[in-house]
Amino acid sequence: MAFELKDRDLAGRIGRLRTKGGEVETPVFMPVINPVIQTISPKRMKNEFQCKIIITNSYLIKKHFGDVHELDVHRLLEYPGVVMTDSGAYQILVYGGVEVTQSEIIEYQKKIGSDIAVILDIPTGWDVPREQVEYTVEETLRRAEAALPLIETSPTLWVGPIQGGKHLDLVASSAKKIGAMPFKIHALGSPTEVMERYNFPVLIDMIATAKRHIPLDRPLHLFGAGHPMMFSLAVALGCDLFDSASYALYAKDDRYMTTAGTLHIKQLTYLPCSCPICNKYTADELRELPKGERERLIAEHNLHICMSEITTVKHAIVEGSLWDLVERRSRGHPSMASALKHLSSYREDLERGHPGFKGHGAFYYGAESLTRPEITKHQRLLKENYKKPENADTLLLLTPPPRKPFNSSTEYHLLQAETKIIENPAIHVCFYAAPYGVIPERLAETYPLSQYEIAVPLDLETIRFTAKQVVEYIKSSGHNRVILYRTRGDLEEAIESAVMDACEATPRTLVSIWNSNPWSVDAFKILKEALKTVGSSQTN
Amino acid sequence: MAFELKDRDLAGRIGRLRTKGGEVETPVFMPVINPVIQTISPKRMKNEFQCKIIITNSYLIKKHFGDVHELDVHRLLEYPGVVMTDSGAYQILVYGGVEVTQSEIIEYQKKIGSDIAVILDIPTGWDVPREQVEYTVEETLRRAEAALPLIETSPTLWVGPIQGGKHLDLVASSAKKIGAMPFKIHALGSPTEVMERYNFPVLIDMIATAKRHIPLDRPLHLFGAGHPMMFSLAVALGCDLFDSASYALYAKDDRYMTTAGTLHIKQLTYLPCSCPICNKYTADELRELPKGERERLIAEHNLHICMSEITTVKHAIVEGSLWDLVERRSRGHPSMASALKHLSSYREDLERGHPGFKGHGAFYYGAESLTRPEITKHQRLLKENYKKPENADTLLLLTPPPRKPFNSSTEYHLLQAETKIIENPAIHVCFYAAPYGVIPERLAETYPLSQYEIAVPLDLETIRFTAKQVVEYIKSSGHNRVILYRTRGDLEEAIESAVMDACEATPRTLVSIWNSNPWSVDAFKILKEALKTVGSSQTN
Repeated sequence: MAFELKDRDLAGRIGRLRTKGGEVETPVFMPVINPVIQTISPKRMKNEFQCKIIITNSYLIKKHFGDVHELDVHRLLEYPGVVMTDSGAYQILVYGGVEVTQSEIIEYQKKIGSDIAVILDIPTGWDVPREQVEYTVEETLRRAEAALPLIETSPTLWVGPIQGGKHLDLVASSAKKIGAMPFKIHALGSPTEVMERYNFPVLIDMIATAKRHIPLDRPLHLFGAGHPMMFSLAVALGCDLFDSASYALYAKDDRYMTTAGTLHIKQLTYLPCSCPICNKYTADELRELPKGERERLIAEHNLHICMSEITTVKHAIVEGSLWDLVERRSRGHPSMASALKHLSSYREDLERGHPGFKGHGAFYYGAESLTRPEITKHQRLLKENYKKPENADTLLLLTPPPRKPFNSSTEYHLLQAETKIIENPAIHVCFYAAPYGVIPERLAETYPLSQYEIAVPLDLETIRFTAKQVVEYIKSSGHNRVILYRTRGDLEEAIESAVMDACEATPRTLVSIWNSNPWSVDAFKILKEALKTVGSSQTN
Repeated sequence: MAFELKDRDLAGRIGRLRTKGGEVETPVFMPVINPVIQTISPKRMKNEFQCKIIITNSYLIKKHFGDVHELDVHRLLEYPGVVMTDSGAYQILVYGGVEVTQSEIIEYQKKIGSDIAVILDIPTGWDVPREQVEYTVEETLRRAEAALPLIETSPTLWVGPIQGGKHLDLVASSAKKIGAMPFKIHALGSPTEVMERYNFPVLIDMIATAKRHIPLDRPLHLFGAGHPMMFSLAVALGCDLFDSASYALYAKDDRYMTTAGTLHIKQLTYLPCSCPICNKYTADELRELPKGERERLIAEHNLHICMSEITTVKHAIVEGSLWDLVERRSRGHPSMASALKHLSSYREDLERGHPGFKGHGAFYYGAESLTRPEITKHQRLLKENYKKPENADTLLLLTPPPRKPFNSSTEYHLLQAETKIIENPAIHVCFYAAPYGVIPERLAETYPLSQYEIAVPLDLETIRFTAKQVVEYIKSSGHNRVILYRTRGDLEEAIESAVMDACEATPRTLVSIWNSNPWSVDAFKILKEALKTVGSSQTN
């Protein structure tokens, strides 16, 4: 296996990719190296920027250096790490064609010793008619097929590109077909324009569609993606490899990258960054430097930011806080926030394979956090795996005690002692709580129900979502009576009214007890009275 | 003037503070220096961390070095920058008392040449009975009064502390009274416990209350605040100076600061940071170092993060994006998100003095962004300064065209050409749009109505808020007819239903025209028909 998974969070993962030139940990950002002119030398990238893998263009190498005897891409670039080469497909996209055949460029990549290499695919591009998109998909698949005999015994890891652009049906069929061929890595083509237009919701659709149709154990490379703003989002959806020349191209135009967007050096009075460059220079000093030196320093800053953002993403995966990071990054631009909202269309994709407890609670910041996999998982488990105790015909739905886990809090113990609910097999105790809806008492000690924090006051979407979860549970739970023991609040009122509707529809009896201090002995007494009839009704 | 404002955003500002030891730009973080043992030397702080001001404890200096002849705090610390000294009040809080009188410690601070110094106030502390809180407020005010003759001619900038803890009425009276005395700087006491408990909404109340009662042209120091997570929030509310020993104390316990919270070094597989330390070491390397060296390096990382976060805040003030930064930081912990929500109680405080256009549009991420000062300002201007054209009895409320500014978009020009609305003085054209509500056609080219971005789909709070703005405008605008020209959508339906209610109440005629493609010539024709009666109704 060339690729081995070490850890995961959402659909993102930390992996180990074995190449003939060495091992690389993913997710990883590969700076694009121009084989002829370099702003930062590959050697410095390795030593000062911790870049263990770079990408360069075999087509440009072939044009410039041709068939020099024993040409090795590592030696040529003076880079003692892993080297991926692209095939010239990018030049097809930009210039409309290349002066090389696929078999020539495949042989050339083998010859120069690329550790990872790409077939000569046809990029889809943007704003092209559907027939043209179909052609790029089909021609790429034909070329992939034709490449197979040429790469069969090659020790290089070969990449099978997925085309289709924003046409999701074509992305799906492209991914499915190329995913069935024996490539080691897949790559999603042409998202650059989508990213440049800040069309992040479309980017999400493209990535999620591709991911659904390729084998999970192959890494997915997002071609030409190199802005630190979107790494966390792309990784959350399952991207593993990124490459871009933006760090250098932006620097040429005096553009300074941040995880919240790009700034022109003219706009900078202060450098909002802690990297070695920004620690050493002020914005004024940077601006006053000669163009060449300034360009190099901005490129270094840009590369530092790309590299440290990938590290930040990896940290989040290990910690189980990738969702939180995506939320944080969504506050860089409203289109990133729109993307965050759009993730709700991919709840199942984010939950599938998401690991459980990683040592800290789930955080809910607002409506968008409702997409968190912990909620999807709880919904699923409650529906598929949880059954109420057989004889318990009455659902006692309790306001959550002030401390978690709810079932081991002092307040709940006091209520139990006073009302003796535990001795009555006819009563099934659950808590209601945002954002989960219903938390069965017996599950209250399990993650994430035992450990989570939610921002207050609750927003309307969260209130409605929670009430809906409660109703859905009640509708299928099989109780014939509900006792709602609640306190004051918007959530409580929404739940009461939703439960009322549900009980009316079935029909089912609802007793609702309201108390502004539900954890007082006085309140317990009222509950006890209401519970007296339970059990006796069983004998009816 | 010791303090001069250079720029501002929300209630935050960039200022220049002149002290006898040099000028300092605010907001600024002052690392606390122990006069006896130092993890990072003050000289290195200046040269490698760009710390232009530090704070140390005059009481500890007095205890250790006593009345050494010609003792100067700058020479003692070998620090060629601005030095603030605290008075021993912190020791009162921790140990219950100090072996020094106020006049002794004031004279001592003068003698050692402190650039900024504090009277011997009585910190309020946390979880103390109200009588005790009242005592700390009154005794601090008595001491401030008593200090005045001693500091009158001193070239040192003297700090007048505000006490009261979470008792906002006491914070208010404390701030008002000490604000009337001739101190150069004020400081808000004892928020450390509030911060350690992540009780950020209470912190907001304390800061906002203090700010309302001290002169705007004096800097506000937040005592003992040193976590990069909350700098942007505190600055947004008007804090200018921060001090803390946390960078070093946390390091002693192997705790690593990030702008999203604190992590134990044991939890770190990767270092999610680009600072020179994290660029040079891996988490494993850091962990394997001997305790002393590890502590120093973590302290250096912590200090880098504190310093670069302040720079990030300053950048945001200049850019006019401090609100965006506060939103970003709010996704570090749900209690920070609760704090963000709580800022809505201080809309007016955030809007007062907020500058206008700074070169980029206002960004709306969701319900919390409704607190942005641009909205508060638009509400106020629409209410107080804007009048409809005198003869325009009909309000034509248009769906917003796809491009901004709305009134110079091609679509709107086409509508104008087709319907000739501009030639009819009886028609007053406005657009409805989230989050502003009503945008009069003539104001559509002004900031922020001409330049803003909003995340989609809209959340329920934003929809309701927008509909409410529309209704409030209609209720007081004085039109006797409303023509709503709308398209499909949740916002549109909410507006129609709200406007219907408003028109029913007054009463006023409402004509509602719905079209799924409102920028088509067909739709224009229907609008034109509806408008035919307008003007003729004037002659009634």
